[in-house]
Amino acid sequence: MVRKQPDPRERFVVILVRPESVENIGLAARAMKNTGFRHLRVVGRSKVEIACPRTAVHAKDILKEASFYSELASATADLNLVFASTAKPRQNYSVLPLDEAVSKMFSFLPEARIGLLFGNERTGLTSTELAASNFRWTIPQASRQPSYNLAAAVLITLFEVFRRLPAQGVLVGSSTREVPLPRNDQEQCIRLIIQKLEEREFIHPTNRRHTTQMLHDLLGRLAMTDRDRKLLLAMFSHAGPKE
Amino acid sequence: MVRKQPDPRERFVVILVRPESVENIGLAARAMKNTGFRHLRVVGRSKVEIACPRTAVHAKDILKEASFYSELASATADLNLVFASTAKPRQNYSVLPLDEAVSKMFSFLPEARIGLLFGNERTGLTSTELAASNFRWTIPQASRQPSYNLAAAVLITLFEVFRRLPAQGVLVGSSTREVPLPRNDQEQCIRLIIQKLEEREFIHPTNRRHTTQMLHDLLGRLAMTDRDRKLLLAMFSHAGPKE
Repeated sequence: MVRKQPDPRERFVVILVRPESVENIGLAARAMKNTGFRHLRVVGRSKVEIACPRTAVHAKDILKEASFYSELASATADLNLVFASTAKPRQNYSVLPLDEAVSKMFSFLPEARIGLLFGNERTGLTSTELAASNFRWTIPQASRQPSYNLAAAVLITLFEVFRRLPAQGVLVGSSTREVPLPRNDQEQCIRLIIQKLEEREFIHPTNRRHTTQMLHDLLGRLAMTDRDRKLLLAMFSHAGPKE
Repeated sequence: MVRKQPDPRERFVVILVRPESVENIGLAARAMKNTGFRHLRVVGRSKVEIACPRTAVHAKDILKEASFYSELASATADLNLVFASTAKPRQNYSVLPLDEAVSKMFSFLPEARIGLLFGNERTGLTSTELAASNFRWTIPQASRQPSYNLAAAVLITLFEVFRRLPAQGVLVGSSTREVPLPRNDQEQCIRLIIQKLEEREFIHPTNRRHTTQMLHDLLGRLAMTDRDRKLLLAMFSHAGPKE
């Protein structure tokens, strides 16, 4: 992460609207800490109420610096863009899937400060609260029920933004066109190879732990197919005697 | 989601190794339900112990169908590939970032069954347990501490796989090169426009709610810049009288 330039996460503000569970506020703070976001605002709860939930491990500083508001409008007043999360389609409001919403966020100049709204655990955001947003997003899910809980929604959303920051999200392609052996057979082959290497005293008491682990790493990464196994076993059976 | 073809998630098996907290097992099940994965295996805990944690809302069926093992080797024996999660770099083992690990999973034929290993909350996976894997992955995080908790690691990982399944993850680009107004100024402009429309009786008691919401959606999506506002206010001020 390049620290010379301003942190691209500084523009983001997480806003929890009327959260019910103090534990969830703590989990949201922890998710922010994990992904490097700092700015938390809470609407409809007071600072005193949320002091030190046990879920905020290592993220107490975020709670300490959080701001508290009685009205959503004052929590968003200084932001340039507001994105609101919703678990379901909403009448009269267009809703983007998460990844499109994040693309949208990154399509604006870095100066634009962005609020990410998360609603109450049971009710979500009201229609009036949705009206206070520029865009709505939803996190794709496999079935209508259950929806993501509040802490999960915050975590997935922040991770998706984090993942797409510069220096994140490098994809490396690599193609392997045969189905690897059942793990059991892979293990057996690795054990046979280790045995051969012990017989040849390549592996001995002083290097056993180190070498065995390196072999597991090496042979594991092969994602061994039947053809690989044949070759490996042939190699290790036919190798000449030591020296 | 196309249901005619076999579900591409069927090949994945979530394996929790010596999980300490029954609540975390419930949260893992819920994360699986959210993202549509079905196969859960638990090593080192018995079925009786984990009956019905309150965190497994709407995901009880996954716990009911889960399999229990005393040894990791038997939990992975029938799988073709094993991926192990780790929060930190590990000596002698190569570790991929999450998105590369998921690319790797998808580089194998769909017939290859894939186990996703998650270790104990405090200790993670031991070196011996890592040796039982083909590949290791880590979830990128902003700072060394705190690491993602177990439930968070399961959720982020499954969401990343889910996101990359066919019919997920469509990106739509869209570029907007001016910083939008502070939200407060946007609100003010929207209110002015609504006021004008009320004066002209375009908005009236029977359509107020519906029309106001549609206007918020429409004008919100503009991500209104100063130039937009000038144009909009000019438009609405200079429009002729109704009729």
